[in-house]
Amino acid sequence: MQQIPMPYLLFLGDVMDPLAAKTARGIHVWRPESCVGQIRLATDSVSLGLEELDIATAKARGAKTMVLGTANAGGKLPGHWIDSIKTAIRAGMNVANGLHQGLNDIPELVELAAEHNVQLFDVRHMRPELDVGSGKKRSGKRILTVGTDCSVGKMYTSLALESAMREIGMKADFRATGQTGVLVAGAGIAIDAVIADFISGAVESLSPANDDDHWDIIEGQGSLYHPSFAGVSMGLIHGAQAHLLVMCHELGRKHMRHLPHQFMPTLKQCVDTNLAAASLTNPDVQLAGFSLNTSGVDEAEAKAALAEISREFGVPATDPVRFGISELAQSIKDRGL
Amino acid sequence: MQQIPMPYLLFLGDVMDPLAAKTARGIHVWRPESCVGQIRLATDSVSLGLEELDIATAKARGAKTMVLGTANAGGKLPGHWIDSIKTAIRAGMNVANGLHQGLNDIPELVELAAEHNVQLFDVRHMRPELDVGSGKKRSGKRILTVGTDCSVGKMYTSLALESAMREIGMKADFRATGQTGVLVAGAGIAIDAVIADFISGAVESLSPANDDDHWDIIEGQGSLYHPSFAGVSMGLIHGAQAHLLVMCHELGRKHMRHLPHQFMPTLKQCVDTNLAAASLTNPDVQLAGFSLNTSGVDEAEAKAALAEISREFGVPATDPVRFGISELAQSIKDRGL
Repeated sequence: MQQIPMPYLLFLGDVMDPLAAKTARGIHVWRPESCVGQIRLATDSVSLGLEELDIATAKARGAKTMVLGTANAGGKLPGHWIDSIKTAIRAGMNVANGLHQGLNDIPELVELAAEHNVQLFDVRHMRPELDVGSGKKRSGKRILTVGTDCSVGKMYTSLALESAMREIGMKADFRATGQTGVLVAGAGIAIDAVIADFISGAVESLSPANDDDHWDIIEGQGSLYHPSFAGVSMGLIHGAQAHLLVMCHELGRKHMRHLPHQFMPTLKQCVDTNLAAASLTNPDVQLAGFSLNTSGVDEAEAKAALAEISREFGVPATDPVRFGISELAQSIKDRGL
Repeated sequence: MQQIPMPYLLFLGDVMDPLAAKTARGIHVWRPESCVGQIRLATDSVSLGLEELDIATAKARGAKTMVLGTANAGGKLPGHWIDSIKTAIRAGMNVANGLHQGLNDIPELVELAAEHNVQLFDVRHMRPELDVGSGKKRSGKRILTVGTDCSVGKMYTSLALESAMREIGMKADFRATGQTGVLVAGAGIAIDAVIADFISGAVESLSPANDDDHWDIIEGQGSLYHPSFAGVSMGLIHGAQAHLLVMCHELGRKHMRHLPHQFMPTLKQCVDTNLAAASLTNPDVQLAGFSLNTSGVDEAEAKAALAEISREFGVPATDPVRFGISELAQSIKDRGL
């Protein structure tokens, strides 16, 4: 699989909305050692608090790739960013881009990159030659984060688990399936951009055979209960052949994201349906635990809700932002799979 | 949705393998009134028994589109077919193609088609501007054919049902989701070629709101139990919002197609799983009946097996090739939905 060279210079442009910088923030939170600095086009645009560097200085400090780390409405590349991109290319830096519009669709950038022997990574379109999934068993252990809905913390949970499992001496690698995750990991496949026939095959290639004591932590997408994206979730579950599922949820969410007419499943329904689907390619799949976003309630209420869930299902339940995820990591280790 | 103009001239090339002509045969079986004739490049190539016409004669008899109705290994367009395609274009005929390789990727054909004001239809790549699915309820009635596996007769069953329902005075339209189906119907979306994010949205656009007494019969794909393609099947189920499912199966099949390691579900498992998935976007979904390929056993054994299934599930079970499908169509009418 293609690897985006690190470390990164994070390009924040002139974006004012903190939410629009969530990709850059994710990279900074999870791979601080891979961030040389930030570059902004306006003094009042979003900042990550990294050192402000111009492109020449960043290059001199070792930056190998400039990452366009912000989203904007419509996924278009603002025309006035092009100069910065050209400067980076001329300085010998690769450029990575999470926007819908591809750098590789802009001929002058493609030419310039070829001339300067650097690469343009459009992470929404990065994919190896794909094959359809086979469902054949492969070596190594796998965890998949699944969810009651979209945007319930599957990427955060996966990265937090990677970190916590490594801390207790386990071999663990995050496997990215969304554009932010791909930029954080420097590799992966934006699974929702794959041709439908190849969803499970893409996940098989993303998480190939490995050592018996090695864990891939595969970032889930969507939800089997989300009528827009369940096909992606299903293919992901089958391709993952997970030994363990971690169920992600936002406490108190009333309906499916963006769909006020669409009911939320109960945790029990969602766990049962995901285990049933996952058992098709790994009959021994089990539920490892729960990862909840409890930010809508106070700490006492959050603890009570997590304790109740943990009691009902007999597995750890945590809010990784509030309470960490080390107990869940330890319980995975203790299973001795 | 784009419509391929009918009637057709069926181009059979120099294909010797009858199986490779299954697209042309499907068109001829289901839309005989739309087939002006056939054209072959060799006297010993597959024949549908249609009148042999040269392109000029076919045009004079009203043919609007020449259809490349055969498959070949690798999905490539044989170079020596190009002359026939050019002749058709020059005669003012559109050309429709079910191969992987697109006519629209061949610049000289694109230019020639523009010059002669005709269209090139690559059905594997035909799709309207797609949106993600919404799961919002829409008017009209819908049947979806689902299956225990791939290649168990979902297209055949859908087309047979369309015909049988029309015969008893119901408003019914086949909605194609595979390339053969798209050529038969002259419209549709090859759903396995859609970007993963848009699977359910594609089905929503394929089967829009309609009269309350109108039935769309949506062609299913794959199986929720097939580890390669279940994502496509899942998105299709959610986009269809089916009122009724028809379960398709090949009697006696031992394992999933092309995957000897992959178990076949029981009919009961498969029905339950499909109804559960379909209930996400239509809580009132019901099983309408079974459509089996019983060609592996004799007629007495087939009848016994169908009777047993019908008794177990309380709905009609038939082999549409052997015994027709009118009883199932009538039972759908009698439900009075």
